[in-house]
Amino acid sequence: MAAVTNKPSLIYGIACALIAFNFPPLAAAQSAAGTREVPARKIPVPDTVSPQMQKIIGAPLSPTWNVLPKTSEEWKAQVAKTAEAAVRGLPAMREALKVKLEPVTIDGVKAYMLTPAVIPAQNQNRLLVHVHGGCYVNGPGESGTSEATMIAGFGGFKVLSVDYRMPPDHPYPAALDDAMTVLKAAQKMVPAKNIGVIGSSAGGGLTLSMVLKAKMDKLPLPGAIAPGTPMSDLTGAGDSFNTNAMVDNVLVAYGASCDVRAAMYANGRDLKDPLLSPVYGDMSGFPPTILNTGTRDLLLSNTVRVHRKLRQAGVEAALYVHEGQAHGGWYRDYTAPEAKETFEEIAKFFDKHLGK
Amino acid sequence: MAAVTNKPSLIYGIACALIAFNFPPLAAAQSAAGTREVPARKIPVPDTVSPQMQKIIGAPLSPTWNVLPKTSEEWKAQVAKTAEAAVRGLPAMREALKVKLEPVTIDGVKAYMLTPAVIPAQNQNRLLVHVHGGCYVNGPGESGTSEATMIAGFGGFKVLSVDYRMPPDHPYPAALDDAMTVLKAAQKMVPAKNIGVIGSSAGGGLTLSMVLKAKMDKLPLPGAIAPGTPMSDLTGAGDSFNTNAMVDNVLVAYGASCDVRAAMYANGRDLKDPLLSPVYGDMSGFPPTILNTGTRDLLLSNTVRVHRKLRQAGVEAALYVHEGQAHGGWYRDYTAPEAKETFEEIAKFFDKHLGK
Repeated sequence: MAAVTNKPSLIYGIACALIAFNFPPLAAAQSAAGTREVPARKIPVPDTVSPQMQKIIGAPLSPTWNVLPKTSEEWKAQVAKTAEAAVRGLPAMREALKVKLEPVTIDGVKAYMLTPAVIPAQNQNRLLVHVHGGCYVNGPGESGTSEATMIAGFGGFKVLSVDYRMPPDHPYPAALDDAMTVLKAAQKMVPAKNIGVIGSSAGGGLTLSMVLKAKMDKLPLPGAIAPGTPMSDLTGAGDSFNTNAMVDNVLVAYGASCDVRAAMYANGRDLKDPLLSPVYGDMSGFPPTILNTGTRDLLLSNTVRVHRKLRQAGVEAALYVHEGQAHGGWYRDYTAPEAKETFEEIAKFFDKHLGK
Repeated sequence: MAAVTNKPSLIYGIACALIAFNFPPLAAAQSAAGTREVPARKIPVPDTVSPQMQKIIGAPLSPTWNVLPKTSEEWKAQVAKTAEAAVRGLPAMREALKVKLEPVTIDGVKAYMLTPAVIPAQNQNRLLVHVHGGCYVNGPGESGTSEATMIAGFGGFKVLSVDYRMPPDHPYPAALDDAMTVLKAAQKMVPAKNIGVIGSSAGGGLTLSMVLKAKMDKLPLPGAIAPGTPMSDLTGAGDSFNTNAMVDNVLVAYGASCDVRAAMYANGRDLKDPLLSPVYGDMSGFPPTILNTGTRDLLLSNTVRVHRKLRQAGVEAALYVHEGQAHGGWYRDYTAPEAKETFEEIAKFFDKHLGK
C-alpha cells in the first residue's frame, strides 16, 4: 500500500479532475436499483500481451482527454499540434511496411493513395477506401493515414484514404459527403464488390454511415467493411462508457474531449440520427463486416452492439476483442505483433468476401 | 450524492470485504509502471439490454462469491442448497421449451438426455454433449441441465448432459474422464463429426479440455464446439480479472469462491496444465468454435484469449460478446431475448459445421 500513501496527489488529482469534469452523468442514476458500487482500484498492465502492447496499455491517460479549447483557433492549434506529432512517425512506418504515399484529388476531395510494394494477384483489381479516426476533428492531411498504411502494408491492398473536411470549419455532413464522393469514384475504378471500406473510431462510425447512406441513395454497396471500435452511438448509451471509464487511457470517459468534438461535427443535429449514430440504423443488407475492439475499450459496448444488430439483420459479421487493449490499441504501433495479426485478420476477411 | 451519504455501510462493506478477502494479489504490482488508478464508481444498469437482462445485470453480488466452507460436509451442504434452488425452476423451463428430460447411465457415467419435442430434419442424426458449469464443484444431478435444456429447446438438438463426478470427493481427472466416456459413447451413436460439445464456465473449460484430450488420445474430434465464458486459465492471468473485478456480479473477483473450487478440482496439479487451463494447450486442428462472453464478464479476457489462440492456430472461431452481461448472463433466464438469440446463434453455428 506504500504506493498509495506516497502519491495521494495523483489519486486525488484524478478524482478531482473527474469531479471538475462532471464525470459521467450518473448522479441521477446513483440510487437506481441495480447500480453497482465499485471501489477504487489499481489495475496493473497485463502480461498476456506483447511488450509493445504493454507499453500502449500502460501509457498515462491521453494528455488531451479532457482539454477543451474554447475557440476555433484554439481547436485548430491543438489539432495541428497532434497531427504534427503523428506525421513524424509515418515515413519510417511506410519504409518498414514498403508502402508508397501519394496525395491525390478525387472529384474535388483530397485523399491519399497508399500503394504497397507487392500487391498479391488476388488484390490487383481490388481497392480499399479508408476513413480515418480522430473524433471527426483530428487527423487532417497525412496525419490520418496511419491505419491506411498498416492495412496497405500488412494486407497487400491499394488504399485510398479520404482526407475529409472537418469541424470547426466543416461540420456534418461534410465528412460523409467527402467519403461518399471517394466511394463513388472508387466504384468507377474497380467493381463495387471489389471495394472494402475500413476505418476506426470516428472512421468506424463513418464506415457504417457510408453503407447506410449508400443504401439510402441506392448506390452499390462495398463488398465488405471493417469498422474498428466504431463511434456508433454518440448519445452516451452503451454500458462500457461506464464500466471502462478511467480504464481506457485513450478516450478515458464519456462526455470528454472526443464527445465534444463529435458534437461539433453533429452541429446541433439529433445525435440519434443513424448517419451520426449508426447503431440506430437499419443494417439489413449490409455487406460482411469485421469488427475490432478491446477489453478496455470505452467503445467495447458500442462495438458489440453493432455486432448484435448486424447478426439480428442476418449479416455475416465477425467480432474481435483484443486482450487488454483500450480504444484502438491495435493500430497504435505497427511493430506490435497484435497490429500485424489484426490487419492480417482483416485482410483475410476482405480476401474471403471481396470480389476479384 | 445523497445515495452515497445514505448508505456508506454498503460501500465500506464492500471495500472491507475486499480487504478481508485479500482482493486480487496486486499489492506487489501496485507501484509498477503503467498501473491504472481507477477511482470508486457507481455503475448503473444499462438500458441497452432487455428488461429481463437488466434484472440479471442489476442483481446484487452473488451471495456466495466469497463464502468458503471449511470442510467437505460444509461444501456439500452449500452445493446441495444451490442445486435445490436451481432444480426448482427447471420443470417450467422444460415445459415452456418443450424439452423432455431422462436420466441415463452411459458406460457407468450418469447423464441426462434432453430431447426437444420437435427435432428438425437436419438434426435427426446429430447429438450434442453438454458439460455444465459450477466451477467444477456445483451443478450436480438435474441442477446442471439448465443450459442443456436451452440449447435443446432453442436449437432443436438432442443433448446428452454429463453429470460428471466432482470435488470434494472426486477431483481431477474425474470430471474430464466422465466427459470423455460420454463423448466416446456418443461417437458410437452418431458419426463423430455430427457431435457438438457445449458447456459454459467450468463447462467451457471442460469443452476445450475434452478436445485437447481427444487429440492426445487420438480420438475423433467433435464437429464443432461451443465453450461459453470458459475457465480457460486458472492461474489468474487475464486482464479482465482486474478490469471487471467487482463489476461482474457472479464471479465478482479472482481468488474468490470459484477459484477455490477450481483449486479443489486441480487438487495440487500444476494450474498451467492445459487440461486444467486450456488456453495453454495446442489448439491446432481444433474443430470450428463459437465463444460467448459478456462485456462485464470476469472471464472476458480468458474468452478472447482463447479466440486469439484458435485464430493463431488457423481454426474457424466466432466470438460473441454480450452487452452489459457478467459471467454467463445469456443462460440465466430463458425468457430473456438474449438467451433465445444466443442459443439460436450457437445452433446456427452447429448447423453450419456439424455433419448430418
